[in-house]
Amino acid sequence: MSTQYIALREACYEANMQLPALGLVIFTFGNVSVADRKNKMFAIKPSGVPYAELTPEKMVIVDFEGNTIDGKLRPSSDTLTHAVLYKHWEHPGAIVHTHSTYATAWAQAQRDIPLYGTTHADHTIADIPCAPPMEDNMIKGNYEEATAHQIINCFMERGLDPVNLEMMLVGNHAPFCWGKDAGKAVYNAAVLENIAQLAWLTEQINPKAPRLKEALVNKHFERKHGPGSYYGQ
Amino acid sequence: MSTQYIALREACYEANMQLPALGLVIFTFGNVSVADRKNKMFAIKPSGVPYAELTPEKMVIVDFEGNTIDGKLRPSSDTLTHAVLYKHWEHPGAIVHTHSTYATAWAQAQRDIPLYGTTHADHTIADIPCAPPMEDNMIKGNYEEATAHQIINCFMERGLDPVNLEMMLVGNHAPFCWGKDAGKAVYNAAVLENIAQLAWLTEQINPKAPRLKEALVNKHFERKHGPGSYYGQ
Amino acid sequence: MSTQYIALREACYEANMQLPALGLVIFTFGNVSVADRKNKMFAIKPSGVPYAELTPEKMVIVDFEGNTIDGKLRPSSDTLTHAVLYKHWEHPGAIVHTHSTYATAWAQAQRDIPLYGTTHADHTIADIPCAPPMEDNMIKGNYEEATAHQIINCFMERGLDPVNLEMMLVGNHAPFCWGKDAGKAVYNAAVLENIAQLAWLTEQINPKAPRLKEALVNKHFERKHGPGSYYGQ
Amino acid sequence: MSTQYIALREACYEANMQLPALGLVIFTFGNVSVADRKNKMFAIKPSGVPYAELTPEKMVIVDFEGNTIDGKLRPSSDTLTHAVLYKHWEHPGAIVHTHSTYATAWAQAQRDIPLYGTTHADHTIADIPCAPPMEDNMIKGNYEEATAHQIINCFMERGLDPVNLEMMLVGNHAPFCWGKDAGKAVYNAAVLENIAQLAWLTEQINPKAPRLKEALVNKHFERKHGPGSYYGQ
Repeated sequence: MSTQYIALREACYEANMQLPALGLVIFTFGNVSVADRKNKMFAIKPSGVPYAELTPEKMVIVDFEGNTIDGKLRPSSDTLTHAVLYKHWEHPGAIVHTHSTYATAWAQAQRDIPLYGTTHADHTIADIPCAPPMEDNMIKGNYEEATAHQIINCFMERGLDPVNLEMMLVGNHAPFCWGKDAGKAVYNAAVLENIAQLAWLTEQINPKAPRLKEALVNKHFERKHGPGSYYGQ
Repeated sequence: MSTQYIALREACYEANMQLPALGLVIFTFGNVSVADRKNKMFAIKPSGVPYAELTPEKMVIVDFEGNTIDGKLRPSSDTLTHAVLYKHWEHPGAIVHTHSTYATAWAQAQRDIPLYGTTHADHTIADIPCAPPMEDNMIKGNYEEATAHQIINCFMERGLDPVNLEMMLVGNHAPFCWGKDAGKAVYNAAVLENIAQLAWLTEQINPKAPRLKEALVNKHFERKHGPGSYYGQ
Repeated sequence: MSTQYIALREACYEANMQLPALGLVIFTFGNVSVADRKNKMFAIKPSGVPYAELTPEKMVIVDFEGNTIDGKLRPSSDTLTHAVLYKHWEHPGAIVHTHSTYATAWAQAQRDIPLYGTTHADHTIADIPCAPPMEDNMIKGNYEEATAHQIINCFMERGLDPVNLEMMLVGNHAPFCWGKDAGKAVYNAAVLENIAQLAWLTEQINPKAPRLKEALVNKHFERKHGPGSYYGQ
Repeated sequence: MSTQYIALREACYEANMQLPALGLVIFTFGNVSVADRKNKMFAIKPSGVPYAELTPEKMVIVDFEGNTIDGKLRPSSDTLTHAVLYKHWEHPGAIVHTHSTYATAWAQAQRDIPLYGTTHADHTIADIPCAPPMEDNMIKGNYEEATAHQIINCFMERGLDPVNLEMMLVGNHAPFCWGKDAGKAVYNAAVLENIAQLAWLTEQINPKAPRLKEALVNKHFERKHGPGSYYGQ
């Protein structure tokens, strides 16, 4: 095993271990990849290995075509989805896939998560999109590659920018999130789960709850993002 | 107490202790048995003993007719259900019974759990069956034996194979799960609880949520099972 | 402070500390008393003291008329409710009052908890009764004494026996449970919370879920109680 | 950094650290300020700093006009809301803002939390008010200052007294709570979350659940507050 990928493997290991710590996965239901964009490669969780048995050394190094470059184990079965997303989008430095409870329930319900409050608007001004289930011929072909195209097409058709909206749902399946680095991507996965729970409860308490008004949407997002932002240090 | 059952008792003890650790039981609401199929016997939790007081030595050794072979304590009151399942089905190496919250709620609601997403399809292509409550004469006879027959009949009538579908609900009662070994059986009990929670939330979010389309059902199950599987190491 | 009540105080302290450990209370929202029936007295939690600050010495000794016999602190504001229940009912050796989430929600909803499954039937064959809110003149008089009479009257009017049914809801308020000793009373409080959560979820999943059929009600209760019981050691 | 604010910073730090411990915040979604009313200043959490990285030294000292007096970091982006509330109301010694799940869901649903039970009445005799979303021109101006006025106006219009009612919801946003000191303000934030969860469940179990009757409302509040109170030591 080559020693040149130590830092990348370490970052990927740390990010994967955050998922059970944040209550976002049970058993092996999720994975994080962390990219070295300059060299067009990423580290990713090995397939089917429980989090308690992970070590940095077990992370698998894969290029943006999905070929394994270094590592003794088979990479996550979702590896091609990660590879295609890195290849088509310039922004993500890390990608997180979980089956976290509330976000997955919205995906199974095949509904976008409406923007109901400022917790949501602090992170994005869009409803969280739920890509429709794939056509049967895409499913029967290379499914994981097709999953990435389903995500990419969903963003294109709706005019969404993966730089400003770093979380989404694959219909019937579960969420995918990303970010400029591993910390941000994992953070987004936890925020999405929180937003998904809040939106479910909001509709329970008031089935006619209105979407957040435009002025508040813009204000909260601008507090945290863009030239006039004044949140954080 | 004979020393020949040490390994079987140890495996059974470890599996039982997983139930409270995974949040699947409170107090004494559940039990795991682990079989030595060659010798047609199994170890099972003693009846009514809290998990915190369990030790490997307290596990009771029982044959497939339900007779206690070794052990100082009375076996679980559900012992005959386990015995009959081992006798009629060749596959299970371990059986788990819990009253885990979401799965038990579906059992009380007397509904099958619909296959709404890939989390479910990763484990089985069938809805999780809920066997109907027993006829009164079965209840008044040997109730635990009858419970096993209720499970077996449910699978026969629906053409389900306990090798491919390792989890189900006894109507009005609670779930039973199994697997080739103790680890798999306990895993299935935790997965069923997760699937049950997801399906409940899915219907909350979209009462008209459709069942997962056939192509996705097959794809996800084939990723993890059968000759073309490519999940895990 | 007299040394003759050491064992009683210790038992009461241990039982009170179980409430936060089992997730049944936050802050000071609950209390346990433990009786010395022979001497017609009980130990009870002091009023408004957080669980983290409790010690056995802080438990207050009170007689069945509600008079403080020993202790430096003021007893729970619910003390008279406990005293009247001990005086009118011969069975309870301990009483538990919590505001546990799901049981309290049923109390606020002013509904009995229907018997939907065997988890419930393992403990009682009755729906969990919800006593109606008190008449205004009872509220304005000695409220805590009246609360006990509300509980006692509820059992009398419905022909319920506090020996066989050790848990109930005071409408608009919260649950009261009891048992022959502190361990059983606290156990009942946790079981009630579990039953309350299951019943809520059952109705969510199937608004037309039927009550458990009579034959199953009787079978499950008889497994655990009475001359033919075969559960436990 | 001046040493004269040590005690204020310490109190503010301790109170902020209670929020994640009580499950009221994830990441940086909340803040506590603690006032030194005599000197018209308060300590507040720095903006965007995760709880795990907080130290007493990082707390920022701000005056009632919102000007930073001492500290190296930028204060919470909600600082002006706190400042205006301290300036307009004489009572609060500490203010807590969270995005706790159930309370935030009611805020997003734009509904007051009805007084359904004694858990609620033990703390206030009013429904928990939900201030309507702001007018667009207020949002586009100084948003945080306007948030405080939205809170103050809501109390004025409804004739509510911030001394007797120490918790409320800002519509579409999230809860604000306060108290005479940091301990009481944080306690109120946790109680509000509990009340919000109970009220949601109450409506789930009985959509026609009535509001708590007047006699019980007054009795429970008077047990804990005012000249005739007999709760606590």
